[in-house]
Amino acid sequence: MAYGEADLQARQYTLQLMREAGLEVGTDLAGNLVGRRTGSDPSLKPILIGSHIDSVPEGGNYDGDVGSMSAIEVAQVLREQSVQLRHPLEVIVFQNEEGGTVGSHAISFGLDEKILGLVSQSGKTIRAGTGSIGGDVSRLAEAVRKPGSIAGYLELHIEQGGTLEQEKIDIGVVEGIVGILHSEVTIEGFANHAGTTPMNQRRDTLLSAARFIDRVNAIVTGIPGRQVGTVGWIRAQPGAYNVIPGRTALGLELRDLDESKVVDLFGQIRTEAANLGRLNQTTFSFSDPVMTHPALTDKKLQAIVGDTAHALGLSTRTMPSGAGHDAQEIAHIGPVGMIFIPSIGGISHSPKEFSRPRDIENGANVLLGSVLSFDRMN
Amino acid sequence: MAYGEADLQARQYTLQLMREAGLEVGTDLAGNLVGRRTGSDPSLKPILIGSHIDSVPEGGNYDGDVGSMSAIEVAQVLREQSVQLRHPLEVIVFQNEEGGTVGSHAISFGLDEKILGLVSQSGKTIRAGTGSIGGDVSRLAEAVRKPGSIAGYLELHIEQGGTLEQEKIDIGVVEGIVGILHSEVTIEGFANHAGTTPMNQRRDTLLSAARFIDRVNAIVTGIPGRQVGTVGWIRAQPGAYNVIPGRTALGLELRDLDESKVVDLFGQIRTEAANLGRLNQTTFSFSDPVMTHPALTDKKLQAIVGDTAHALGLSTRTMPSGAGHDAQEIAHIGPVGMIFIPSIGGISHSPKEFSRPRDIENGANVLLGSVLSFDRMN
Repeated sequence: MAYGEADLQARQYTLQLMREAGLEVGTDLAGNLVGRRTGSDPSLKPILIGSHIDSVPEGGNYDGDVGSMSAIEVAQVLREQSVQLRHPLEVIVFQNEEGGTVGSHAISFGLDEKILGLVSQSGKTIRAGTGSIGGDVSRLAEAVRKPGSIAGYLELHIEQGGTLEQEKIDIGVVEGIVGILHSEVTIEGFANHAGTTPMNQRRDTLLSAARFIDRVNAIVTGIPGRQVGTVGWIRAQPGAYNVIPGRTALGLELRDLDESKVVDLFGQIRTEAANLGRLNQTTFSFSDPVMTHPALTDKKLQAIVGDTAHALGLSTRTMPSGAGHDAQEIAHIGPVGMIFIPSIGGISHSPKEFSRPRDIENGANVLLGSVLSFDRMN
Repeated sequence: MAYGEADLQARQYTLQLMREAGLEVGTDLAGNLVGRRTGSDPSLKPILIGSHIDSVPEGGNYDGDVGSMSAIEVAQVLREQSVQLRHPLEVIVFQNEEGGTVGSHAISFGLDEKILGLVSQSGKTIRAGTGSIGGDVSRLAEAVRKPGSIAGYLELHIEQGGTLEQEKIDIGVVEGIVGILHSEVTIEGFANHAGTTPMNQRRDTLLSAARFIDRVNAIVTGIPGRQVGTVGWIRAQPGAYNVIPGRTALGLELRDLDESKVVDLFGQIRTEAANLGRLNQTTFSFSDPVMTHPALTDKKLQAIVGDTAHALGLSTRTMPSGAGHDAQEIAHIGPVGMIFIPSIGGISHSPKEFSRPRDIENGANVLLGSVLSFDRMN
């Protein structure tokens, strides 16, 4: 977890690997690890590659690490093979991705007071944590990079879903990172005695919530596409065997690459909730939705990743990323591309998270080839 | 709440009322308030009337109090009118009804170590609480009355449901107190990332729970009768917007006067759960059901209550009691009868609990008349 003891040790280990790969290493003002390699044309903007190494409680060993270690391996190979790129290359390992893509947000947008005050899993605030890993919180404004200041950013990552494995595809060419809508739904009815209140006189909010959850699933799966909708938490009050729940709250999340589709689904769900409420004499209300906007990857980088994979004899599939990544932040300052490899069983954020060595090798080779192509073509 | 400061004060006040009604008062070994009046035939067993005065957190002013005060009023009227009953009369105010019909259970079955160790709403154990109100926990065995040792027990109570008010009926003749089945239902699936896991690859236990709750409602309301079924609490884990719940637990309660109907409904619900689990790749399991058996009232006492009400020009309806009452415990040692009066809006266990003065007067008059009839006829 970011800023914890294991994170500090892992950062030292990673810096050492970066040094051994011939990179000129340091920690930027935002606490990201950066390893630089000069290019033959000093007038060109840098190509960035990397990911993160922090994890979540009960997390796995592949999320972030595959991309970070492969980026270092790319630098290592370039050195071993004495390949000189035209562009400067930066291998970047972003700090605290799991706490809200903190390090990549810091160099793309900056960190405001609200973000700095958030407490991360390790128990430290982002302010204290960023200081503890070598960042300088008093100079964060200097860490921000201007839009147009990079040639591009490429990130290799595990899929964290089961699509590539199920379809036996080697490489996912990511077309973008989905937008996310969150809304807290509250259902008001009347808490009454479960023994003395006949079934037809109840205003049972948990029953309304149950029908709502089923309808959310039906609405989200009722149209073609890869959109997802989830109710991940629920609270029914007062919460006893013998009392009809008079108030139930739950969390609704919708994701898709197309923001208008998310907004449209949310509208349909609200309409359906109003109908359910009338039928069951309960009242639904929705908190103002919080929207994380989708971030699209660069078409040219998509083509480079796909062509590189095919040249290596690998099969590809264009797909959205359902999870957030540092690339969605970096998209603010330059073109980004992402390469996915299969996650076995689609499992992530779990000790059972696994990607096969062969798939990791494929991903690293596609990353290397894409960097070489991009360097030549831009 | 039983054993709290307000309960202690209310008990003193109630004892004083009982004394003023000419009763010979005391606290029995189980902590119940008892007021005795001698009968003309010392060979006859006593007639018991009463209820309780303890309440619940955020409770109302009628549940228990209506029956307790009316029983004292009956004794008061008998004294004022110089009516001599053949049977001894006992006005009894049971302790801690809300904590599990403790006082009435104590004189019908006794209190075992498990019950004595339970913590009541006031924070005291039943052992400590019973001692604090004048019971003697070391002599509880002497408090138990033998089956056949009473002529009968009559209890007036608010309905706590909305049937009498809705149907504009004055008096409910209670045919019995429903049996209650509790089972904890656990649904196992797989907790996965809500962004990266396609809709068709999920093992979403909250979705399974939602469909289950809807089906419980359909099964319980799908047959004629007054049975009720409730899911009153639910817990979905891990419980975050962005994680598909991998484990959900919920509480199922079924009630009916006919135990075989409850058992049959539970069987149907288990079968339906197995089907839902298969459809959604989740697994339902049910804890061993805990069953409180139904307690039927005495047919002769039902007839006496009905005839008394009709003689007073009051309308009646035979109905089950959906809530538990002290009468269900006393049914173990002798015939019991219960008289219901309307609860406005069917609201109970709430400060909004209300019964009209006229309805309370009707109930008290039916209690008085029923005692007189029963005394003559037995």
